[in-house]
Amino acid sequence: MPTTQQALNVSFIGNEPISGDGNLFRAFAPASHENLADEFANVSPEQANQAIEKAAAAFPVYSKRTPTQRADFLEAIATEIENLGNELIERAVLESGLPTGRISGERGRTTGQLRLFAAVLREGSWVDARINPALPDRQPLPRVDLRRMLVPLGPVVVFGASNFPLAFSVAGGDTASALAAGCPVVVKAHPSHPGTSSLVGQAIVSAALKTGMPDGVFSLLHADNEVAQQLVAHPSVKAVGFTGSRTGGLALLRVAQERAEPIPVYAEMSAVNPFIVLPGAISQETGQNSAATVATGLAASITLGVGQFCTNPGLVFLLDSPRTAVFLETVAEKIRTSAPATMLNAGICRNYQKGVQQNRIIPGVHVLAEADIDGDDSQTQGRPIILSTSAPIFLSSPALSEEVFGPTSLIVICETETELVDCLTSLEGQLTATIYATPSELIHADIDWISLLQAKAGRVLFGGFPTGVEVSEAMTHGGPFPATSDSRSTSVGTGAILRFVRPVTYQSFPDELLPTALQNANPLNIWRNVDGQITQTTVDK
Amino acid sequence: MPTTQQALNVSFIGNEPISGDGNLFRAFAPASHENLADEFANVSPEQANQAIEKAAAAFPVYSKRTPTQRADFLEAIATEIENLGNELIERAVLESGLPTGRISGERGRTTGQLRLFAAVLREGSWVDARINPALPDRQPLPRVDLRRMLVPLGPVVVFGASNFPLAFSVAGGDTASALAAGCPVVVKAHPSHPGTSSLVGQAIVSAALKTGMPDGVFSLLHADNEVAQQLVAHPSVKAVGFTGSRTGGLALLRVAQERAEPIPVYAEMSAVNPFIVLPGAISQETGQNSAATVATGLAASITLGVGQFCTNPGLVFLLDSPRTAVFLETVAEKIRTSAPATMLNAGICRNYQKGVQQNRIIPGVHVLAEADIDGDDSQTQGRPIILSTSAPIFLSSPALSEEVFGPTSLIVICETETELVDCLTSLEGQLTATIYATPSELIHADIDWISLLQAKAGRVLFGGFPTGVEVSEAMTHGGPFPATSDSRSTSVGTGAILRFVRPVTYQSFPDELLPTALQNANPLNIWRNVDGQITQTTVDK
Repeated sequence: MPTTQQALNVSFIGNEPISGDGNLFRAFAPASHENLADEFANVSPEQANQAIEKAAAAFPVYSKRTPTQRADFLEAIATEIENLGNELIERAVLESGLPTGRISGERGRTTGQLRLFAAVLREGSWVDARINPALPDRQPLPRVDLRRMLVPLGPVVVFGASNFPLAFSVAGGDTASALAAGCPVVVKAHPSHPGTSSLVGQAIVSAALKTGMPDGVFSLLHADNEVAQQLVAHPSVKAVGFTGSRTGGLALLRVAQERAEPIPVYAEMSAVNPFIVLPGAISQETGQNSAATVATGLAASITLGVGQFCTNPGLVFLLDSPRTAVFLETVAEKIRTSAPATMLNAGICRNYQKGVQQNRIIPGVHVLAEADIDGDDSQTQGRPIILSTSAPIFLSSPALSEEVFGPTSLIVICETETELVDCLTSLEGQLTATIYATPSELIHADIDWISLLQAKAGRVLFGGFPTGVEVSEAMTHGGPFPATSDSRSTSVGTGAILRFVRPVTYQSFPDELLPTALQNANPLNIWRNVDGQITQTTVDK
Repeated sequence: MPTTQQALNVSFIGNEPISGDGNLFRAFAPASHENLADEFANVSPEQANQAIEKAAAAFPVYSKRTPTQRADFLEAIATEIENLGNELIERAVLESGLPTGRISGERGRTTGQLRLFAAVLREGSWVDARINPALPDRQPLPRVDLRRMLVPLGPVVVFGASNFPLAFSVAGGDTASALAAGCPVVVKAHPSHPGTSSLVGQAIVSAALKTGMPDGVFSLLHADNEVAQQLVAHPSVKAVGFTGSRTGGLALLRVAQERAEPIPVYAEMSAVNPFIVLPGAISQETGQNSAATVATGLAASITLGVGQFCTNPGLVFLLDSPRTAVFLETVAEKIRTSAPATMLNAGICRNYQKGVQQNRIIPGVHVLAEADIDGDDSQTQGRPIILSTSAPIFLSSPALSEEVFGPTSLIVICETETELVDCLTSLEGQLTATIYATPSELIHADIDWISLLQAKAGRVLFGGFPTGVEVSEAMTHGGPFPATSDSRSTSVGTGAILRFVRPVTYQSFPDELLPTALQNANPLNIWRNVDGQITQTTVDK
């Protein structure tokens, strides 16, 4: 094994640390606007192919590891990440410009989700085992013995995201869920945090070695876009996980569509996360149902993490009421007194400024408020700004419903429920949709607001703010296109494991040849569907 | 409602029987080689759009029908199909050339699967409900209340298959599973059995009216290929189900890929269903493990239904042993004494004859046996034929591993296990793979035969024959490409419902605003995942 020092700028082809044969690049520190000293080398097309070939060779071995062995591996990754200690935290802070507290929290989320997937494996029922025992005497025809469970698809390519250097990157949710499913993973590191990526890659390789996983179960590649596309096109790759821009996700989807064999591409791309406020929710003078409270929370959600969350509320629809003025004034006040802050990289900041500029010059769009505290006014500082407009202007300006990644939001003031319905109907698919209302406003409404929102989003919130994404059984971080390329899935939470599997049925197998999950004695003690009944009992044969 | 006589040649745009504005065509009776009297009219592009628009309008209404109401609808369809009585059987026999017994059985399978999906709805746990109750006191951050279940995708277009005029057609598995999921369905009828399609369409419309389903929940269209592609391209369509040829499936997939919004296309396309015989399985002189018994069953499976099953065993791999000669002689004898029979239509028969001819002229390929009983030697008679070859010839002739739809199979005699492994490794994805072996031949083998087959197929059989496809919880009728365009699914059995849904999470909802499946009291008494535990209990709040 390389020492930490050596590992900082390497790729890993399986367990082997290598120096890429491709172009050199340096990491960038957004807070200081400096290129860092370490040089990173992208891999060559040949090196990328070697990683895929190692993954393909590892697949039949890794996919047969027991659930317990895979759980041990995931837990070992969590431990190895923790063992990186402050070096990891410091490097991630340096490369992302995110504060130490946020990065520490993100590390906890990353190790927590690895351990959660390990727990899912140890419990075991996720394989959706279904058993129809033989019915030799059935009329008019006997029934054969049929047993079905989910099995892994094969090697998965994961693209790290820029905005979560740990939780949606090398050892993030895509990697954790694919490894849990039994699929080897090849990660293409995000160039915004290459050193962080190499450190985490080293932790995974250490864990693989310590738990005896086959060489090739994991690879980490620094790679340019051309090689990234080659990874997606490789015939041995059976699925792709991606979090990033719509442009990037659609480019990978196109590459996948040109393959002879279609494969699933799970691209989490863009969302504006509509936030709807009905009058009842802000009708009180003070307290939870007051305009001041909701508007204060909203402003905090918009500026959280310099607005760099997929779930940032980018569009607010306010149904006009006597409280509209207070609501707008409160948001404006909070935004004016917020501070510009360092964004993840210069490109993201440039796109942010461009996106805001394009929207604010649209006739009928007004600047409600802009942060008036000067930050370090450089190329990486994102300045919070809130725009406002009317429903007719919104409906006639499609650009206004596109994502602007950063600390901004557009407030659309709707005069009537009809205007609000028209606005919501016009939206594309979203990760989240939030509605503020009183229960009776929804129950007794002529309009089925919840169905309207459910049709557009993977997660619907009754109050609260969309920017927290719990890693749990019941989370859906997904949604109709273009929020994702495949609305049938989630990229956060234990449901993410279902993206990387397919069902297989075993017919008339002798018990000893069946996978353990399907054997008569139910040795894993999992919940199974036996002739339509959910049960943990054994099967008589 | 139209009378049966009127309904025979209509399309249905929702509940409205219409005459198409497109080209006219006649049904063809393959047994008598005659065009039938009735004229059918394809719909125009405008009429096709009307059907989709009605489906889109019906979706928000239908998707909110209770599980019980949807179950009532499915059961009513089954009853209405039975109420068509002999008229349906006779018409299907006439249009398909299949015998009455087979069509009667297929009707039972069709109504049975509608009732099975109704039972799945009444039981209710299929929605995969997951609940993480709020943890307001959790440190360092409280947890919000999260509840997740599967909800329907939206309107689904279904393409009827030629080879199952009832079970994989207008009210077949795709329609039953999509309606069960809560999705309106627009069926494009297969032109091989248009009258059968109109009759079944009428039964579904009757059931929709009797159970009060919204107009547009179901449409039946006679349509040409251009209009069929337009259906797939329509922005309101959210998924496609297809069973048919590889060419046809790939054409629809390409249309779907050109959409702005990607949608799932479930195309069940082609398979040769490898059938592997290891020496132990035929080592006995007589009985179940004798060459004569296995070979006799194999010949029957190859010729069943004139070989017109997706699961027909089209490739047999025989590991050479002292019993090889008996095995081959028995297959040959059974095939020679089998009779040619009427295929589904002239095009299928032509393709069959062409496919056989292309393979038999390959140097090194021999005719092991051909049916020597003369049938009615016309353009629709499929004559059983078995070819044989060696592994090296097979490996050097890719055409030999392509599907020839009809009563034929190629027996590849492998001299060594290595040759057999090479042959199996070379195969594309399959619906099924069957292995004949003794348990000890598999347990003590150097080669992991089961993993090898599992990587290639959706269903792996230990003995038996692949041509029976049970409709049950544990069935997988699917498999890696090109068996299907999406290996994550099955088109037969209760798992098929999962193709037409996506997860949605409800965050911090008041109990009374939640879908019934997610409410605290668990009023549907379904199995739910509560913080990782599978339980039917209520949730305390």
